Amino acid sequence: MNLKKRLIYEGKAKKIFEHEDSDKVIIEFKDDATAFNSIKKAKFLGKGELNCQISINIFKYLIKYNIPTHFIDALNKNSIISHKVEIIPIEVVLRNIAFGSLCSQTNIKPGTVLNKPLIDLYLKDDALKDPLLTKDRIKLLQIVHMDELELIENITFKTNTILKEFFLKIDLNLVDFKLEFGRDQNGKIVLADEFSPDNCRLWDLRAVNVNMRSLDKDRFRNDLGDLIEAYTEINNRIYNFISSR
Amino acid sequence: MNLKKRLIYEGKAKKIFEHEDSDKVIIEFKDDATAFNSIKKAKFLGKGELNCQISINIFKYLIKYNIPTHFIDALNKNSIISHKVEIIPIEVVLRNIAFGSLCSQTNIKPGTVLNKPLIDLYLKDDALKDPLLTKDRIKLLQIVHMDELELIENITFKTNTILKEFFLKIDLNLVDFKLEFGRDQNGKIVLADEFSPDNCRLWDLRAVNVNMRSLDKDRFRNDLGDLIEAYTEINNRIYNFISSR
Repeated sequence: MNLKKRLIYEGKAKKIFEHEDSDKVIIEFKDDATAFNSIKKAKFLGKGELNCQISINIFKYLIKYNIPTHFIDALNKNSIISHKVEIIPIEVVLRNIAFGSLCSQTNIKPGTVLNKPLIDLYLKDDALKDPLLTKDRIKLLQIVHMDELELIENITFKTNTILKEFFLKIDLNLVDFKLEFGRDQNGKIVLADEFSPDNCRLWDLRAVNVNMRSLDKDRFRNDLGDLIEAYTEINNRIYNFISSR
Repeated sequence: MNLKKRLIYEGKAKKIFEHEDSDKVIIEFKDDATAFNSIKKAKFLGKGELNCQISINIFKYLIKYNIPTHFIDALNKNSIISHKVEIIPIEVVLRNIAFGSLCSQTNIKPGTVLNKPLIDLYLKDDALKDPLLTKDRIKLLQIVHMDELELIENITFKTNTILKEFFLKIDLNLVDFKLEFGRDQNGKIVLADEFSPDNCRLWDLRAVNVNMRSLDKDRFRNDLGDLIEAYTEINNRIYNFISSR
């Protein structure tokens, strides 16, 4: 049976296909990598599979902790079946440690551990280079209802609590991560998209050399070493931890 | 008596001098104009005087409506005496109509009349190009107490109500404006800096040609005609209105 049907949408790192059930979709993870609003581009053989496997395990883990997600099941090495959702065009970034754009836009020193997690909201719009949003601008643009946004922020904080602890168990420091949310067919807010080293910063607590601590897309952004090696290491640690329980 | 003493601070458009009373300062308005984070620069003979006179009249008008300001008195054609304040490093922008950076950072069409005024807060930091701030980033950076910020926003909304009506009486449409606030010697929040066509957009309701409606710094930013002519027109309308009452 050929489950894969019409391509609905192609993004920078994923393709969305129709599923024979109209309330489901198939998400295929691509090997493409982009950075700095697509100024830097590359292809890494095997990245799609790794991000798919990592996302599957993270979604399964979060579901155990009652985080609502779009994830239904794994389909094959680089694809999952998920609920069809209407994506809310906001990138929700949670930061435990200051790094990246937060530091270039403020005078906070990179590496500063934040007293409490910070959520930054960005408009998901490549043409506009994903600009930072304030709550007042969100209200003005009517992108999302304010009660939905409150729920989204609560889910994001809860996800952080769960995953920060999870990653610490496998000697990884969850610096920051980006989530996307959607409304399912019943209008319920669920965590969508993916959770992979493409969309988070994970620092290896076992790293001897601080320059090699990044096991995430910063390896590609800042030419810090083999990306597939880093993603494989994360996938293995997650897999081994989950299998051992 | 020489009131002018040591230069305390020189900004892009103003100089601050010591006053013989240590709780006061002298603010001198310069003829310099800058735009696009100082990429574009020019000098307009007479701009300092015009901005000084406009600011004096606006401050006096706001004080009548119980807006707390740093303004004490006019000193000469291009200088005022004001209370010495500790400037809060936030640029408070209120928008009645969408224009400028709001439009380039979102998909709002320039000229859209907003259902209710929008306040955007920016970090006052030239080196960082005055980045947009969220409330959560303000809390993190500890730039200002949240109760002070609430007061600042309230004063800004009230100032808008007063000035929008004021400018309408002289056929000017107050599109947006930027305010700065400070803490006086008693820690009280007061409106500081200036109110001039350098820091607001004023559209002439008498303009026949839409390209000539800008009577503000957009004339310089976008090469829309004689800046001094526009500022003089604003100064005259304000002066005539105030004198006639």
